[in-house]
Amino acid sequence: MQILQSPAEVQKITREWGAPVALVPTMGALHAGHLSLVEIARSVAKRVVVSIFVNPLQFAQGEDLAKYPRTFDADVSLLREKGVDLLFAPEATEFYPRGFSTKVHVSGLTDSLCGASRAGHFEGVTTVCLKLFQVTSAQFAVFGEKDFQQLRVIEQMVEDLNLPLDIVRGPIVREADGLAMSSRNRYLSPVERRLASRIPEAIKAVHSFGPDAVVRDVIEGARRLLGDISVDYLHVCSEFTLRPEGPEVLLSKILSPHFFLAVKIGQTRLIDNTPLHGVTT
Amino acid sequence: MQILQSPAEVQKITREWGAPVALVPTMGALHAGHLSLVEIARSVAKRVVVSIFVNPLQFAQGEDLAKYPRTFDADVSLLREKGVDLLFAPEATEFYPRGFSTKVHVSGLTDSLCGASRAGHFEGVTTVCLKLFQVTSAQFAVFGEKDFQQLRVIEQMVEDLNLPLDIVRGPIVREADGLAMSSRNRYLSPVERRLASRIPEAIKAVHSFGPDAVVRDVIEGARRLLGDISVDYLHVCSEFTLRPEGPEVLLSKILSPHFFLAVKIGQTRLIDNTPLHGVTT
Repeated sequence: MQILQSPAEVQKITREWGAPVALVPTMGALHAGHLSLVEIARSVAKRVVVSIFVNPLQFAQGEDLAKYPRTFDADVSLLREKGVDLLFAPEATEFYPRGFSTKVHVSGLTDSLCGASRAGHFEGVTTVCLKLFQVTSAQFAVFGEKDFQQLRVIEQMVEDLNLPLDIVRGPIVREADGLAMSSRNRYLSPVERRLASRIPEAIKAVHSFGPDAVVRDVIEGARRLLGDISVDYLHVCSEFTLRPEGPEVLLSKILSPHFFLAVKIGQTRLIDNTPLHGVTT
Repeated sequence: MQILQSPAEVQKITREWGAPVALVPTMGALHAGHLSLVEIARSVAKRVVVSIFVNPLQFAQGEDLAKYPRTFDADVSLLREKGVDLLFAPEATEFYPRGFSTKVHVSGLTDSLCGASRAGHFEGVTTVCLKLFQVTSAQFAVFGEKDFQQLRVIEQMVEDLNLPLDIVRGPIVREADGLAMSSRNRYLSPVERRLASRIPEAIKAVHSFGPDAVVRDVIEGARRLLGDISVDYLHVCSEFTLRPEGPEVLLSKILSPHFFLAVKIGQTRLIDNTPLHGVTT
């Protein structure tokens, strides 16, 4: 596995390969969720590139940029074992040099859910992803469904800008108790970690609601199971619009209804999501 | 010459060529200025693609989108004569389908000059150019120096987003009296056209100022020659920042000083520009 910092060098090498490239963009602190994305990448393209970059552009003031977990050496070992061809790990000062002034913005899909509480977050995500796609000559890019809004925003950007690549969705990978894998799970104390297992309980419960339930049933069902966990948002949206539906709306009236959750346990913000009336589809 | 409307088809064909592609993006109503860009494109790449698209995104409310000159059949003949390989002429409804919601924004360089008076203009330009680059698989794109701010904004976007293509600058092509070629020159009545020749007179005059002149000398010199032509702006900026310099600044203190002009003759807005202390370099 080659490990490279220079965007120009990676661009040169990946273009010279002349073979389909699948990219897995990450912020490092890799876990089994990321590794499942690498396996998916391997299954769709001859060459697999992973990027590790804790992207300052997608952290708002006061968020956890400085303390975001960095486990570079362990990450490298994991990626080597997976047979990754190239690891791209740029320096922020080279990836965003002095005078950097271009942003990519997707409106609509970024207004709700995490976009409402994390100012500028998705603009940071779309900008860095567009750069990563260009640098790595990717024909595929694999994104996990854990960050479902991010996935939809990227899909929209790719379509709108005619980017010549396919976005591949990777299913959520969960711990034994069902908690979605996340680099931020490391922040949890043992007590907080036990509390966090209420999140997958809520996800499992709402997943089983039938098409005759209304949005309020889903939200209240989730809230009951979350108990005294501090809620940022609980919403049911169409997968296509990500606009929160009103409490009285029947799930059967929503195109691909999807449940979204963001909570805070101690200082740690966690998100999860699930398609709804999964039972009947 | 193939003429195609479908972005997907153009993407497929240009990728299959497997040869360097040079793109000349235009809004049609082609004149000798455009044709000189096609010649430059031909000199740098094996395949030449021209796009004709009157991009609604770059026209502000109240601008001349509806009446912008459209001379498609004549344009096609000119491009055929020049041996262009492919003409991409998308429909707005297909290039910006329902739900389209992504914009590319370059800050800083777009704040001044035409950016100050044409709200959203450059966001429309960068967004459409990024799309055109992706659709045509361009490794080169040729832009005329007549729209110098546009050229600089595109150069900045390409650098910031690591786009794998080179921007090539095409010199301004001028009429016999020195008026810069522009599709909008067609709007001028014979009387207005005669008046417009004061613009190249002003450009020629300021070009000859030496490094010991200050910005005020340049601006006042230009204003004198423009007479009663209505001025939108007259500015001296560094080519690198496009920030207007104050009246007392010596040209020798400005990195690549450049003069920019926008005027209105009747209903027609015209722009021009020139590097300064050209005499001494």
